[in-house]
Amino acid sequence: MTAQSAEFSIPIRVYIEDTDAGGIVYYVNYLKYFERARTEYMRSFGYDKAALPAEGVMFVVSKASLHYRSPARLDEALEVTARVAEVGGATMTFVQTIERGGECLVTGEVVIALVNRETGRPQRLPKALRAKMGV
Amino acid sequence: MTAQSAEFSIPIRVYIEDTDAGGIVYYVNYLKYFERARTEYMRSFGYDKAALPAEGVMFVVSKASLHYRSPARLDEALEVTARVAEVGGATMTFVQTIERGGECLVTGEVVIALVNRETGRPQRLPKALRAKMGV
Amino acid sequence: MTAQSAEFSIPIRVYIEDTDAGGIVYYVNYLKYFERARTEYMRSFGYDKAALPAEGVMFVVSKASLHYRSPARLDEALEVTARVAEVGGATMTFVQTIERGGECLVTGEVVIALVNRETGRPQRLPKALRAKMGV
Amino acid sequence: MTAQSAEFSIPIRVYIEDTDAGGIVYYVNYLKYFERARTEYMRSFGYDKAALPAEGVMFVVSKASLHYRSPARLDEALEVTARVAEVGGATMTFVQTIERGGECLVTGEVVIALVNRETGRPQRLPKALRAKMGV
Repeated sequence: MTAQSAEFSIPIRVYIEDTDAGGIVYYVNYLKYFERARTEYMRSFGYDKAALPAEGVMFVVSKASLHYRSPARLDEALEVTARVAEVGGATMTFVQTIERGGECLVTGEVVIALVNRETGRPQRLPKALRAKMGV
Repeated sequence: MTAQSAEFSIPIRVYIEDTDAGGIVYYVNYLKYFERARTEYMRSFGYDKAALPAEGVMFVVSKASLHYRSPARLDEALEVTARVAEVGGATMTFVQTIERGGECLVTGEVVIALVNRETGRPQRLPKALRAKMGV
Repeated sequence: MTAQSAEFSIPIRVYIEDTDAGGIVYYVNYLKYFERARTEYMRSFGYDKAALPAEGVMFVVSKASLHYRSPARLDEALEVTARVAEVGGATMTFVQTIERGGECLVTGEVVIALVNRETGRPQRLPKALRAKMGV
Repeated sequence: MTAQSAEFSIPIRVYIEDTDAGGIVYYVNYLKYFERARTEYMRSFGYDKAALPAEGVMFVVSKASLHYRSPARLDEALEVTARVAEVGGATMTFVQTIERGGECLVTGEVVIALVNRETGRPQRLPKALRAKMGV
């Protein structure tokens, strides 16, 4: 029931909207970068409604953890990676990084769950999605 | 059909989330401050679903303009004002300011329209709302 | 002293971070999209520190106005344009749009000023910048 | 060298800026709520420059983890708590929650480090701060 994907990555440019008065990227925003990479990863195999895939269900983040090693700054070009580390019945666990020129700035793990939009109850991941992801 | 309200205001504290690498409040965020003041203004007369008042309709911003005079900075205590300057059949025009210790930092005008959530078509402002606003 | 640039544009993908509970792009975020386009426009002629170009000075937004015609939604692919409509001694006025498949969703005008970071006083636009922009 | 603080809490109102197209609070924004509570906790004992306490140093988040149990929604009134669970030479570990009417929606742990603004190297927490926090 567990499977790993190859690593997927996208480039991200740091804009002023992403920074804070400390002169660095506001740490909260790395979670947005992570999500953009996961979304593009899903889109890469034809799954283009990554957050709200169908009527009545949605993907939600159930756990997230980040380890900040070194800050990114305005105008820098970053690489954001996403790799599926584990797949359960209703969840996917992503291991992700933020890199700059090969240096790892931030690492994180994000657990995504498919839930019923009204009740919040977990829903089994669609077979079509699992097939596309090869897990 | 036009009416003005008294001025309403709320205090806002500047957090690091609101700032940018220039060391000042990121100018985009004043629109969020403006909206918090409009929302609390609506709540002040019992209208506690300011953005999504009922099934099928929603308030949207149809025009916004801002004039930035002087920047606010981290940890400052601001005052955000909201005043209804004009009311039309489906719209309300707010005149708003951001102030710090009596000094006006930002002025703005925001036009809000009530629309159908599916079609985007303008909807007449509910009489109950107009009555509560006294306009 | 006035000059116009050709229109510049970048593609933008709408992520969940950009949306709100109305199911559409949160109207405030179009200002971020506008800024990304201005920043890439500056970068396109070699000006890669668009917000904080040098020690002691910074570009700030002094006026912004937006007209919202139709909402963008999650996962849509947008085009964001930027065109310099006017250049003054210390300011540049951009006319900008958000488009989706040729349909114009949002129009806006943003006035940028170069200021001293400490005093906030206007600074003359560097000749090198004006030369690069051809204005 | 380890000490715990009493629990501190602040009220937070959910605005449209905090939500996403799933109709719930965008999960990333709980980190902002957490930070507002930490900032007000620091301010409560006279430490009013929580993020950038002095020239040359700043507090940064070095680790953060969140567990999302149930979503908050537009217009809800939440309670955000902050408690110092551990204090090291250069770090403070906060345990935090988001609650709604006594129900716990989100729990999290955030490790803050005091660092040199230029080098990023850890700095010992000032004695004055530790004395004020009673740790």
